[in-house]
Amino acid sequence: MDYPPKIQELIEIFSKFPGVGPKTASRFVFYLLKKQDSQINEFLDVIADLKKSIKICKFCHNPFEPKLKQDLCSICSDPLRNKNLLCVVEKETDLLLLEKTGKYSGYYFILGGLLSPLKKRETERLMLENLLKRIKEPTSFGLINVNFKEVIIAISYTTEGEATSLYIQRELAPLNMKVSRLAKGLSIGAEIEYADEETLSSALESRKEV
Amino acid sequence: MDYPPKIQELIEIFSKFPGVGPKTASRFVFYLLKKQDSQINEFLDVIADLKKSIKICKFCHNPFEPKLKQDLCSICSDPLRNKNLLCVVEKETDLLLLEKTGKYSGYYFILGGLLSPLKKRETERLMLENLLKRIKEPTSFGLINVNFKEVIIAISYTTEGEATSLYIQRELAPLNMKVSRLAKGLSIGAEIEYADEETLSSALESRKEV
Repeated sequence: MDYPPKIQELIEIFSKFPGVGPKTASRFVFYLLKKQDSQINEFLDVIADLKKSIKICKFCHNPFEPKLKQDLCSICSDPLRNKNLLCVVEKETDLLLLEKTGKYSGYYFILGGLLSPLKKRETERLMLENLLKRIKEPTSFGLINVNFKEVIIAISYTTEGEATSLYIQRELAPLNMKVSRLAKGLSIGAEIEYADEETLSSALESRKEV
Repeated sequence: MDYPPKIQELIEIFSKFPGVGPKTASRFVFYLLKKQDSQINEFLDVIADLKKSIKICKFCHNPFEPKLKQDLCSICSDPLRNKNLLCVVEKETDLLLLEKTGKYSGYYFILGGLLSPLKKRETERLMLENLLKRIKEPTSFGLINVNFKEVIIAISYTTEGEATSLYIQRELAPLNMKVSRLAKGLSIGAEIEYADEETLSSALESRKEV
């Protein structure tokens, strides 16, 4: 005995969602089966609407709801942003979190992923090419009077994150720009006892007088 | 800055999916935003189709694809099942797993949840009422020649599972039926070193001569 084909089909679609395995996917399907028709229809409408009302920013790749024929999101079209700074992030959420700190006023670029041995070389090349093009010719993506002097790599200190950062640094080297990365150190609330050696060394090296 | 309203709306819908928090929900939305229109449409079609082609079995609550005007799933309409056994499970997946063991040939009832202090009393009462009705009058739900002599409670040994099982046992007591539960013991592959005391005690008490 197996699940009915229609259920199996939807399980397979949900299994491809990020971080979802077949078990979670089947829970999603049974959850939907218990919903009323009106709730299902609302869900379908919102998804169908999503792509129609959301545009991806031409420069930074951040999704936004355009007014009129706008190509740039509210950040990239804001004339008051710092025109010398570009911050490279992995994904949309990271941009939002950095923006919420209120400590950064430059532009962003969403890489859309990290380098990984599992990904196709083609995708990686495209990812980096997109970044380089934007640094070299921001005007052709709609940003005016911009002159990037520093690229801040705001990517996690994971294995994939490290590989991606190193690759970006290597690609940017010929451009003679300032390239920086977010500071490595102790998290707020984390106990020193449980910090790994590298984090602790960095926290020590980058210590600040108080 | 926040996500655009359309994105926020879908994040909120996905956040209600079982086991999904706002972070995972936003990853789902950005995943969908990257999909091509044709893939989104396929996804929408499958969901829209789901409720139309799937029926919930009148007796056991298991979803199935009906042929003609069938009210019962393939298990409940199978005349060769053991007509004395009823197995109570929490959810659809549990039924499928038990069925895959090939060691059980009776009927099932999907409870659709467990008792919990967070749930509405009303839902719990309905859940138990549905079970009792099926045990007392299986014929009125389409099962013929059935005469349940044993109810097997196949519910996890979690806090919620224990509460639910005890409640069911209490409700079934006046019916003078045999009520059993799945054996508690060591999992295959689990090391004794890491077993909790209760599991170990049960495994010892229910030991088998080999």
